[in-house]
Amino acid sequence: MNFYVMTLFPEMIENGMHTSITGRAITKGLLSLTTVNIRDYSETGNGRIDDYPYGGGAGMVMQAEPVYRAYEALKEKIGSSPRLVYLTPQGKVFHQEMAEEFAKEEELVFLCGHYEGIDERVLEEIVTDCVSIGDYVLTGGELPAMVMMDAVSRMVPGVLSNQESGQFESFQDGLLEYPQYSRPGVWRGKEVPEILLSGHHAKVERWRRDQSILRTLHSRPDLLETAEFDKQDRKFLRALLSDEYEVRITEEEKSFLAKLLAF
Amino acid sequence: MNFYVMTLFPEMIENGMHTSITGRAITKGLLSLTTVNIRDYSETGNGRIDDYPYGGGAGMVMQAEPVYRAYEALKEKIGSSPRLVYLTPQGKVFHQEMAEEFAKEEELVFLCGHYEGIDERVLEEIVTDCVSIGDYVLTGGELPAMVMMDAVSRMVPGVLSNQESGQFESFQDGLLEYPQYSRPGVWRGKEVPEILLSGHHAKVERWRRDQSILRTLHSRPDLLETAEFDKQDRKFLRALLSDEYEVRITEEEKSFLAKLLAF
Repeated sequence: MNFYVMTLFPEMIENGMHTSITGRAITKGLLSLTTVNIRDYSETGNGRIDDYPYGGGAGMVMQAEPVYRAYEALKEKIGSSPRLVYLTPQGKVFHQEMAEEFAKEEELVFLCGHYEGIDERVLEEIVTDCVSIGDYVLTGGELPAMVMMDAVSRMVPGVLSNQESGQFESFQDGLLEYPQYSRPGVWRGKEVPEILLSGHHAKVERWRRDQSILRTLHSRPDLLETAEFDKQDRKFLRALLSDEYEVRITEEEKSFLAKLLAF
Repeated sequence: MNFYVMTLFPEMIENGMHTSITGRAITKGLLSLTTVNIRDYSETGNGRIDDYPYGGGAGMVMQAEPVYRAYEALKEKIGSSPRLVYLTPQGKVFHQEMAEEFAKEEELVFLCGHYEGIDERVLEEIVTDCVSIGDYVLTGGELPAMVMMDAVSRMVPGVLSNQESGQFESFQDGLLEYPQYSRPGVWRGKEVPEILLSGHHAKVERWRRDQSILRTLHSRPDLLETAEFDKQDRKFLRALLSDEYEVRITEEEKSFLAKLLAF
């Protein structure tokens, strides 16, 4: 997978991506990263790439031509028209399935905006995907591009070790992760749940699954609506509803569960 | 606003946050950033901070004690128990209103996990907020912490210039941004919309508002459900519905709008 980032802050991208798992994958040659400084394509030659917006209003707009020239240079380098992601709050909201889909590309270009955004005309010419990483306002597209590259990298074969891949699979079933514990068995008076020390694999798995369901109910009940439950899961959900389980849930959670189980 | 980040990759955080608007705000003294390397609090003294999970399974878990020691040192430095945000897919999904709320704090600590996560017992002891930046899996909490700090920083008085603040306000009305254009008036054969050159301020504002509504309808219709519309907006929405407007919308968009206008 070859990543290309068109940005005003190439160092930030280089430094961030050369860290941890993505850094290791770049060193191994599983990923490559090319940053393009849009300022190098300034029309005036002095690095200026923004101007006032037509129609007035606050802020500056990144001009079409420097962005287009940077893109043309990149296209020539790649040898074909690549998929180009523009990071913007106006885009489709990024999620795990999109990461899997983007990971199928060989080349991915990210365009990072700043100021009030980029002249619409160049966006119409070159952008294939508008993506937002969430409903909040950020200074520029650099952090969102890094977030997307991180999530996409993890789907590229070989980037994660077998050990690391485990984590991903456990998220994919649509529920939140169960709690984790490591040594010591008693830490500052707090014990590890006894079941985890039992060595009874099936019971451990059941406990973890129940914890995942419980956590999802507490923090992200919306995810339960699309999750798939087997017979054992439904038994646990009914136990929660009838107060048979040691953990009590709120009345609100109960009425949510009751509706869920009715389907 | 004082940010503190507990991490295994302090350099990545330092480099990212010293860039662009947050970098300028740190230089001006409007923000401060302190990174704490959790490895410095390794129990074994060799920097090791992870161990196998109880109950088995893939991956390693960050142990409770190094995290707790790093936290204790930080608490002493701050002089009180700070609000501590743990970045995790298990958290509440971050959004703009949360950024505003967090911006009211004087001290904010971010805890970045890696591997399979952190021993649950220390999280129970020190974490006040679990936050996720979106429904995707990332390598660690560093990028999410930077995303949150960027969004929160923008709400801190003085961090944005008056010019820059304009952008934020235009997002706050719950609609997506209108398209932007800058010089030249004709770029590679593509003209700036005539209305923006008219100098007629009220008409420009109306056009921009219509464009915002149209974009939101295309990309994020969910946002229209909570947006507030005045009489002129409703007139535009009805024009869209009756095909009076130059831009055609899809049948699906029409049926969505019809429902929206019925309320």
